[in-house]
Amino acid sequence: MNTERMKELGKKRSVIRELFEYGNKRKAEIGAENVFDFSIGNPSVPAPAEFTEKLCRMLSEENPLSLHGYTSAPGDLKARNAIATDLNERFGTAFGAEHLYLTCGAAASLTVSLSALVGKGEEVILFAPFFPEYTVFIETAGGKAVTVPCEWPDFQINFEKLEAALSEKTAAVIINSPNNPSGAVFSEESIVKLSKILRAAEEKFKRKIYLISDEPYRELIYDKKDYPFVTKYYKDSVVCYSWSKSLSLPGERIGYILVSPENEDWREVYAGICGAGRALGFVCAPSLFQHMIPECIKMTSDISVYKKNRDILYDSLTEMGFEAVYPEGAFYLFLKSPEPDANAFCEKAKKYELLIVPSNDFGMTGFVRISYCVLQKQIERSLPSFKKLAEEYFK
Amino acid sequence: MNTERMKELGKKRSVIRELFEYGNKRKAEIGAENVFDFSIGNPSVPAPAEFTEKLCRMLSEENPLSLHGYTSAPGDLKARNAIATDLNERFGTAFGAEHLYLTCGAAASLTVSLSALVGKGEEVILFAPFFPEYTVFIETAGGKAVTVPCEWPDFQINFEKLEAALSEKTAAVIINSPNNPSGAVFSEESIVKLSKILRAAEEKFKRKIYLISDEPYRELIYDKKDYPFVTKYYKDSVVCYSWSKSLSLPGERIGYILVSPENEDWREVYAGICGAGRALGFVCAPSLFQHMIPECIKMTSDISVYKKNRDILYDSLTEMGFEAVYPEGAFYLFLKSPEPDANAFCEKAKKYELLIVPSNDFGMTGFVRISYCVLQKQIERSLPSFKKLAEEYFK
Repeated sequence: MNTERMKELGKKRSVIRELFEYGNKRKAEIGAENVFDFSIGNPSVPAPAEFTEKLCRMLSEENPLSLHGYTSAPGDLKARNAIATDLNERFGTAFGAEHLYLTCGAAASLTVSLSALVGKGEEVILFAPFFPEYTVFIETAGGKAVTVPCEWPDFQINFEKLEAALSEKTAAVIINSPNNPSGAVFSEESIVKLSKILRAAEEKFKRKIYLISDEPYRELIYDKKDYPFVTKYYKDSVVCYSWSKSLSLPGERIGYILVSPENEDWREVYAGICGAGRALGFVCAPSLFQHMIPECIKMTSDISVYKKNRDILYDSLTEMGFEAVYPEGAFYLFLKSPEPDANAFCEKAKKYELLIVPSNDFGMTGFVRISYCVLQKQIERSLPSFKKLAEEYFK
Repeated sequence: MNTERMKELGKKRSVIRELFEYGNKRKAEIGAENVFDFSIGNPSVPAPAEFTEKLCRMLSEENPLSLHGYTSAPGDLKARNAIATDLNERFGTAFGAEHLYLTCGAAASLTVSLSALVGKGEEVILFAPFFPEYTVFIETAGGKAVTVPCEWPDFQINFEKLEAALSEKTAAVIINSPNNPSGAVFSEESIVKLSKILRAAEEKFKRKIYLISDEPYRELIYDKKDYPFVTKYYKDSVVCYSWSKSLSLPGERIGYILVSPENEDWREVYAGICGAGRALGFVCAPSLFQHMIPECIKMTSDISVYKKNRDILYDSLTEMGFEAVYPEGAFYLFLKSPEPDANAFCEKAKKYELLIVPSNDFGMTGFVRISYCVLQKQIERSLPSFKKLAEEYFK
C-alpha cells in the first residue's frame, strides 16, 4: 500500500541525520569547537555578496506582482534563455529555452524526470556509490534500481558489470559527476565508453535508454579540465541541475531539467516532463530566484575555499596512512575504511569526536564519507584526532 | 503506463490558458485596454510594501548560509511555531510546531497529503465545482475522484448526494472554502453537518475518512463572520494552506499542511506526510520565505481592493439581469450562463472582448467563472460590454 510506504519513509531514521543530532548533543556537552562534524553536505561558503546585492536591488526596483507571480510552468523565458546561452557558450551546444524546464531543485529535477521516463516495473541503473535518495525517487516513479559498482582507486565505471546489468527493462541510467559521496569526476573517456555501450544496448533491446546526468556539483571541480557535457556524447540524455551547491542556495529549491535536442523524440520527453511536474504538484519553480537567474548565471560561491579544504584533508590523511579516492570535485572525501566494517571504524572515530559517515547507505561497503564543506579551522583542529585514529590502525 | 499519462498531461491544453493566450493576441491587435481578460486567478494586489522592506532587511542583516540553507524537511521551527501561535490565537486551537509541515505551496500540500492518505484504488470525494487540478493530484496518489454537487443558489453541500457517494472505499473528502470557482464560503452549519455525516460514515465503514480542507483563500472573505476552522468540528482533518493569495506570492511556492492533533493517529498521518514529501522530491519549502513567515504572519495584501471589485461586478451584473452565486470570498464570480451551453455563452462574450471561463472544467455545466482579481478600472470599462451581452439574452 502506497500509504504504508509513505509512513515508513517518514519514520526511517537516516544515519547522517542521527550523526548530525549526536553531534549537536556532543557540542552542547564539550563545546562546539571540540566536535569535528563532517557528516552533512551543506555548503559552508556563503552565496556571493554580489548575489545578495542584486537580489535586494531587484526587490526594491521591480513590481512585486511580477517578481512573486506565477511564471509559466516550464519557467520564466528570460531565465531559460540565460541558461541556454550560458551552456552554449561554455559547451558549444545549441540549446534554446524550449529544451529547459525550471524546477524546485535537484530532487525535483530527478522525481520529475524519472516519473516522465520510467514506466512501472522498468529498471534504472545506478553507479555505486550513489546519493541514497535515488532509490526513493526511482521507487516513486514505479521503477526498480539496479546497481553497478565504481571501483577503487579511480571510481570510474565498471563497464563489464554495466553491460551485464543492461536489459530490455532498462529505461534509464543515472550518473552523478562530480560524485556524492566519492568526489570522483567521470573522465571524457568514461563518458565516451558509457555512451557507446548505451547506444549498443538501445539497438539490441530496441528501446530508448535515457542517460540522466545529475549535476549539482558541476561547478565544483578543482583541477582544471574540460567537463564532458553528456548531450555532446549521447543523444538520449537529460541533464538535472541545481544551484544548491554552486551558489550555496540549497534551501531555495531552484534548478532545472535540460532535454537534449539531439534526441529525435525530445518534444515527447519534454511534454512528459511538463506533465510529471504538474502531476507531482510543482506548479513552477520559486519565482524570485527564477528572476535572479539571468543576474547570476556566471556567478559561483568562492569555490577555492573547498579546494583548499580538500588539499589539506587529502594530503594530511593520506600521509597518516589512510587511503582515499582522489576527490577531483564536489566536497566529499571518500576514505577506505582501514577495517572491513566501516560502521565499526566510524564508531572508533567518534571516540576522537570525529563524525564521519559509513558508506553503506551509499550502496557500497568498506568506505566512509568525510564532508569537507566546513571551516578550514575545523579541518586543521581535527587533524590530531585523525592522527590518533590512524595510530589505532597503522603503527 | 505512467509515462504515457505524463505525456498526455504535459500536452493537454487548458481552456483557461488558451483564453489567456487568445487575450494576449487580441491585446496586441486592439490595445490592452480594450480587452477585458477575466480568465486568470492571479492576485492583482501586490504583496505589502512592509513585506518587501522586511525581506530586504533580512537579506542585508542575516547570514546567507542560514537564510538560504536547508531547513529540516518539515520546515524551520520558528516559522512553524509562528503559524501555530497565530492559528491558536485566532481559532482557539492548541496546535504546536509538531503538527505543521511546510510545503512548496498549495499544490504540493495537496499532492503530499493525498499521497500520504489515499491508497491505490481508494476514493476521494470532491464537491463540484472544484479546482480542476484536484483530479490530477488524486490520480497521482493512485486514487479515484468521486463528485458531489453543490447547488444553486448558495452553493453549500448537497448532503443527500454526499451520503450516497460515501462508501467503504472513501479515503478522503476535499473541501475548498472560500471556493475556486464559485466564491461560496461554507457556513458553520455546513461544516457541522458534514462532520456529523463523515463521523457516521467512519463508524459504518470502520475506517478513517480524512477531511482535507484546502484553504488558500481563507483570508479573502469580505463579509465579517467567523470562519469555521475544520479541526474544531472533525478530528480526522488535515488543512492545506498557501500564502499565494493572501500575500500575493503565488510564484514563491510557500504553504503548509496542518495535521489535526485531535486525531488519535496524528503521528502516523504526520509521518506519512513527511514520507510523501520526501518521495515526491520536495526536500524543504523555499527557505528564504520560510524565514519570512514569523515576520508576516499577521500581514495580508490589501483585500479591500477585491471586495470593492466584487461589489461593483456583482451589483452591476445582477442588475443587468444575470444571476450569480453571491461571492462571499475568493476573487471569482460564478455566473449562471443565460443559455444552457456555457461554452456558447463564453463565445458570445468574446465578441464584446470579454474573456470568461466556462464552468465545465470545474466539474459543473451551465456556469462561467469571472476572475475579478483585476484592476477596478478594467471592471468599470468592461461594464458596457457586459451590458451589450446581457441585451442578447434579456430584453
